[in-house]
Amino acid sequence: MEPLNLHEAFGSIDALWSPRLAARVNDTAVKLARVQGEFLWHHHEAEDELFLVLKGTLRLEFRDRVVTLNEGEMLLVPRGVEHRPVAEEEVWLMLVEPSSTLNTGNVRNERTIDRVEGV
Amino acid sequence: MEPLNLHEAFGSIDALWSPRLAARVNDTAVKLARVQGEFLWHHHEAEDELFLVLKGTLRLEFRDRVVTLNEGEMLLVPRGVEHRPVAEEEVWLMLVEPSSTLNTGNVRNERTIDRVEGV
Repeated sequence: MEPLNLHEAFGSIDALWSPRLAARVNDTAVKLARVQGEFLWHHHEAEDELFLVLKGTLRLEFRDRVVTLNEGEMLLVPRGVEHRPVAEEEVWLMLVEPSSTLNTGNVRNERTIDRVEGV
Repeated sequence: MEPLNLHEAFGSIDALWSPRLAARVNDTAVKLARVQGEFLWHHHEAEDELFLVLKGTLRLEFRDRVVTLNEGEMLLVPRGVEHRPVAEEEVWLMLVEPSSTLNTGNVRNERTIDRVEGV
Protein backbone atom coordinates (compact mmCIF):
# COMPACT_ATOMS: atom_id res chain seq x y z
CA MET A 1 0.00 0.00 0.00
CA GLU A 2 2.15 2.80 -1.33
CA PRO A 3 0.70 6.20 -2.21
CA LEU A 4 0.97 7.21 -5.84
CA ASN A 5 1.96 10.77 -6.62
CA LEU A 6 0.18 11.78 -9.82
CA HIS A 7 2.80 14.33 -10.87
CA GLU A 8 5.58 11.77 -10.53
CA ALA A 9 3.47 9.12 -12.27
CA PHE A 10 2.80 11.29 -15.32
CA GLY A 11 6.48 12.21 -15.38
CA SER A 12 7.35 8.52 -15.73
CA ILE A 13 5.12 8.00 -18.78
CA ASP A 14 7.07 8.44 -21.98
CA ALA A 15 4.63 7.44 -24.72
CA LEU A 16 1.60 9.48 -25.79
CA TRP A 17 -1.84 7.84 -26.08
CA SER A 18 -0.63 4.92 -24.04
CA PRO A 19 -2.73 4.58 -20.89
CA ARG A 20 -1.00 3.21 -17.81
CA LEU A 21 -2.71 1.48 -14.93
CA ALA A 22 -2.60 3.54 -11.73
CA ALA A 23 -5.00 1.42 -9.67
CA ARG A 24 -7.53 -1.34 -9.91
CA VAL A 25 -10.73 -0.93 -7.92
CA ASN A 26 -12.51 -4.26 -8.08
CA ASP A 27 -13.15 -4.66 -11.83
CA THR A 28 -12.52 -1.02 -12.64
CA ALA A 29 -9.28 0.50 -13.83
CA VAL A 30 -7.97 3.95 -13.04
CA LYS A 31 -5.57 4.82 -15.82
CA LEU A 32 -3.28 7.75 -16.55
CA ALA A 33 -2.46 8.93 -20.04
CA ARG A 34 -0.44 11.71 -21.63
CA VAL A 35 -2.09 12.72 -24.87
CA GLN A 36 -1.46 15.23 -27.61
CA GLY A 37 -2.82 15.46 -31.13
CA GLU A 38 -5.81 13.59 -32.52
CA PHE A 39 -6.93 10.15 -31.52
CA LEU A 40 -9.30 8.08 -33.63
CA TRP A 41 -13.06 7.88 -33.69
CA HIS A 42 -14.22 4.90 -31.64
CA HIS A 43 -16.73 3.75 -29.07
CA HIS A 44 -16.79 1.18 -26.32
CA GLU A 45 -19.57 -1.33 -26.71
CA ALA A 46 -20.11 -2.11 -23.05
CA GLU A 47 -17.96 0.31 -21.10
CA ASP A 48 -18.62 3.79 -19.76
CA GLU A 49 -15.49 5.92 -19.71
CA LEU A 50 -14.78 8.82 -17.40
CA PHE A 51 -12.34 11.48 -18.59
CA LEU A 52 -10.78 13.75 -15.96
CA VAL A 53 -8.33 16.40 -17.16
CA LEU A 54 -5.45 16.97 -14.72
CA LYS A 55 -3.40 19.23 -16.98
CA GLY A 56 -4.18 21.10 -20.17
CA THR A 57 -7.33 21.27 -22.26
CA LEU A 58 -8.96 18.29 -23.94
CA ARG A 59 -11.46 18.49 -26.74
CA LEU A 60 -13.84 15.56 -26.76
CA GLU A 61 -15.50 15.37 -30.14
CA PHE A 62 -18.83 13.62 -30.56
CA ARG A 63 -20.78 13.19 -33.79
CA ASP A 64 -23.23 15.91 -32.76
CA ARG A 65 -21.21 18.17 -30.48
CA VAL A 66 -17.84 19.04 -29.01
CA VAL A 67 -17.13 19.24 -25.28
CA THR A 68 -14.07 21.08 -24.02
CA LEU A 69 -12.57 19.91 -20.75
CA ASN A 70 -10.19 22.18 -18.91
CA GLU A 71 -7.99 21.25 -15.97
CA GLY A 72 -10.13 19.97 -13.10
CA GLU A 73 -13.06 19.09 -15.32
CA MET A 74 -14.49 15.68 -16.08
CA LEU A 75 -17.00 14.06 -18.40
CA LEU A 76 -18.60 10.64 -18.50
CA VAL A 77 -18.80 9.19 -21.98
CA PRO A 78 -21.51 6.54 -21.86
CA ARG A 79 -20.95 3.16 -23.49
CA GLY A 80 -21.85 3.08 -27.16
CA VAL A 81 -21.24 6.78 -27.77
CA GLU A 82 -18.71 7.48 -30.50
CA HIS A 83 -16.02 9.92 -29.49
CA ARG A 84 -12.66 11.27 -30.51
CA PRO A 85 -10.28 12.94 -28.04
CA VAL A 86 -8.17 15.77 -29.43
CA ALA A 87 -5.51 17.78 -27.60
CA GLU A 88 -3.76 20.72 -29.19
CA GLU A 89 -1.22 20.89 -26.37
CA GLU A 90 -0.23 18.05 -24.09
CA VAL A 91 -2.93 16.86 -21.72
CA TRP A 92 -2.65 14.74 -18.60
CA LEU A 93 -5.68 12.56 -18.36
CA MET A 94 -7.15 10.28 -15.73
CA LEU A 95 -9.51 7.62 -17.05
CA VAL A 96 -11.89 5.56 -14.96
CA GLU A 97 -13.34 2.63 -16.87
CA PRO A 98 -13.94 -1.10 -16.62
CA SER A 99 -10.66 -3.03 -16.74
CA SER A 100 -11.84 -4.65 -19.96
CA THR A 101 -11.80 -1.30 -21.83
CA LEU A 102 -9.59 -1.22 -24.93
CA ASN A 103 -8.14 2.22 -25.71
CA THR A 104 -9.35 2.11 -29.33
CA GLY A 105 -12.71 0.57 -28.46
CA ASN A 106 -14.37 -1.07 -31.43
CA VAL A 107 -11.42 -0.26 -33.70
CA ARG A 108 -8.27 -2.32 -33.85
CA ASN A 109 -5.24 -0.77 -35.48
CA GLU A 110 -1.63 0.22 -34.78
CA ARG A 111 -2.76 2.46 -31.92
CA THR A 112 -4.47 -0.38 -30.07
CA ILE A 113 -2.80 -1.27 -26.79
CA ASP A 114 -3.70 -4.76 -25.68
CA ARG A 115 -1.68 -4.84 -22.53
CA VAL A 116 -1.84 -1.86 -20.21
CA GLU A 117 1.32 -1.57 -18.12
CA GLY A 118 1.39 -0.20 -14.60
CA VAL A 119 2.78 3.25 -13.86
CA MET B 1 -23.27 15.00 -21.25
CA GLU B 2 -22.25 18.05 -19.29
CA PRO B 3 -18.71 18.49 -17.98
CA LEU B 4 -18.32 18.66 -14.23
CA ASN B 5 -15.96 21.23 -12.78
CA LEU B 6 -14.44 19.74 -9.64
CA HIS B 7 -13.83 23.09 -7.95
CA GLU B 8 -17.44 24.12 -8.44
CA ALA B 9 -18.67 20.69 -7.38
CA PHE B 10 -16.76 20.77 -4.08
CA GLY B 11 -18.02 24.31 -3.54
CA SER B 12 -21.58 23.04 -3.72
CA ILE B 13 -21.08 20.40 -1.02
CA ASP B 14 -22.05 21.73 2.38
CA ALA B 15 -21.81 18.72 4.68
CA LEU B 16 -18.57 17.09 5.80
CA TRP B 17 -18.08 13.31 5.50
CA SER B 18 -21.00 13.11 3.12
CA PRO B 19 -19.84 11.70 -0.23
CA ARG B 20 -21.67 12.94 -3.32
CA LEU B 21 -21.92 11.07 -6.59
CA ALA B 22 -19.97 12.77 -9.38
CA ALA B 23 -20.25 10.00 -11.97
CA ARG B 24 -21.20 6.40 -12.43
CA VAL B 25 -18.93 4.28 -14.59
CA ASN B 26 -20.75 1.02 -15.15
CA ASP B 27 -21.06 -0.36 -11.59
CA THR B 28 -18.46 1.95 -10.14
CA ALA B 29 -19.07 5.26 -8.42
CA VAL B 30 -16.83 8.31 -8.52
CA LYS B 31 -17.66 10.30 -5.41
CA LEU B 32 -16.53 13.63 -4.01
CA ALA B 33 -16.30 14.36 -0.31
CA ARG B 34 -15.22 17.23 1.89
CA VAL B 35 -13.78 15.86 5.10
CA GLN B 36 -12.27 17.26 8.27
CA GLY B 37 -11.67 15.66 11.63
CA GLU B 38 -11.70 11.96 12.43
CA PHE B 39 -13.87 9.37 10.77
CA LEU B 40 -14.50 5.94 12.28
CA TRP B 41 -12.63 2.70 11.95
CA HIS B 42 -14.29 0.51 9.34
CA HIS B 43 -13.65 -1.77 6.42
CA HIS B 44 -15.52 -2.72 3.27
CA GLU B 45 -16.13 -6.43 2.99
CA ALA B 46 -16.17 -6.69 -0.79
CA GLU B 47 -15.15 -3.29 -2.11
CA ASP B 48 -11.78 -1.79 -2.90
CA GLU B 49 -11.69 1.96 -2.31
CA LEU B 50 -9.46 4.47 -4.03
CA PHE B 51 -8.66 7.71 -2.20
CA LEU B 52 -7.38 10.63 -4.27
CA VAL B 53 -6.63 13.87 -2.44
CA LEU B 54 -7.49 16.97 -4.49
CA LYS B 55 -6.90 19.51 -1.71
CA GLY B 56 -5.23 19.30 1.67
CA THR B 57 -3.56 16.42 3.47
CA LEU B 58 -5.32 13.21 4.49
CA ARG B 59 -4.02 10.76 7.03
CA LEU B 60 -5.17 7.24 6.35
CA GLU B 61 -4.74 5.19 9.47
CA PHE B 62 -4.42 1.42 9.31
CA ARG B 63 -4.01 -0.98 12.23
CA ASP B 64 -0.32 -1.41 11.43
CA ARG B 65 0.67 1.86 9.76
CA VAL B 66 -0.30 5.37 8.78
CA VAL B 67 -0.18 6.68 5.21
CA THR B 68 -0.20 10.41 4.56
CA LEU B 69 -1.70 11.58 1.28
CA ASN B 70 -0.93 15.07 0.07
CA GLU B 71 -2.65 16.90 -2.76
CA GLY B 72 -2.28 14.92 -5.98
CA GLU B 73 -1.63 11.64 -4.22
CA MET B 74 -3.78 8.53 -4.17
CA LEU B 75 -3.96 5.22 -2.39
CA LEU B 76 -5.94 2.07 -3.00
CA VAL B 77 -7.37 0.54 0.16
CA PRO B 78 -8.09 -3.10 -0.66
CA ARG B 79 -11.35 -4.67 0.45
CA GLY B 80 -11.25 -6.09 3.95
CA VAL B 81 -8.56 -3.72 5.22
CA GLU B 82 -9.60 -1.71 8.25
CA HIS B 83 -8.94 2.00 7.91
CA ARG B 84 -9.72 5.36 9.44
CA PRO B 85 -9.42 8.63 7.50
CA VAL B 86 -8.33 11.64 9.52
CA ALA B 87 -7.93 15.21 8.30
CA GLU B 88 -6.55 17.95 10.52
CA GLU B 89 -7.56 20.64 8.00
CA GLU B 90 -10.26 20.35 5.38
CA VAL B 91 -9.57 17.85 2.61
CA TRP B 92 -11.23 17.49 -0.78
CA LEU B 93 -11.36 13.85 -1.65
CA MET B 94 -12.24 11.87 -4.74
CA LEU B 95 -13.30 8.29 -4.11
CA VAL B 96 -13.52 5.56 -6.71
CA GLU B 97 -15.34 2.50 -5.44
CA PRO B 98 -18.11 0.07 -6.37
CA SER B 99 -21.51 1.76 -6.27
CA SER B 100 -22.49 -0.62 -3.49
CA THR B 101 -19.92 0.87 -1.11
CA LEU B 102 -21.32 2.26 2.14
CA ASN B 103 -19.32 5.13 3.62
CA THR B 104 -19.08 3.48 7.05
CA GLY B 105 -18.45 0.00 5.62
CA ASN B 106 -19.18 -2.73 8.14
CA VAL B 107 -20.32 -0.22 10.76
CA ARG B 108 -23.75 1.28 10.85
CA ASN B 109 -24.27 4.37 13.00
CA GLU B 110 -25.33 8.02 12.80
CA ARG B 111 -22.60 8.74 10.26
CA THR B 112 -23.88 6.12 7.82
CA ILE B 113 -25.24 7.59 4.60
CA ASP B 114 -27.54 5.18 2.85
CA ARG B 115 -28.44 7.35 -0.07
CA VAL B 116 -25.66 9.16 -1.88
CA GLU B 117 -26.94 12.31 -3.60
CA GLY B 118 -25.50 13.65 -6.82
CA VAL B 119 -23.33 16.76 -6.86
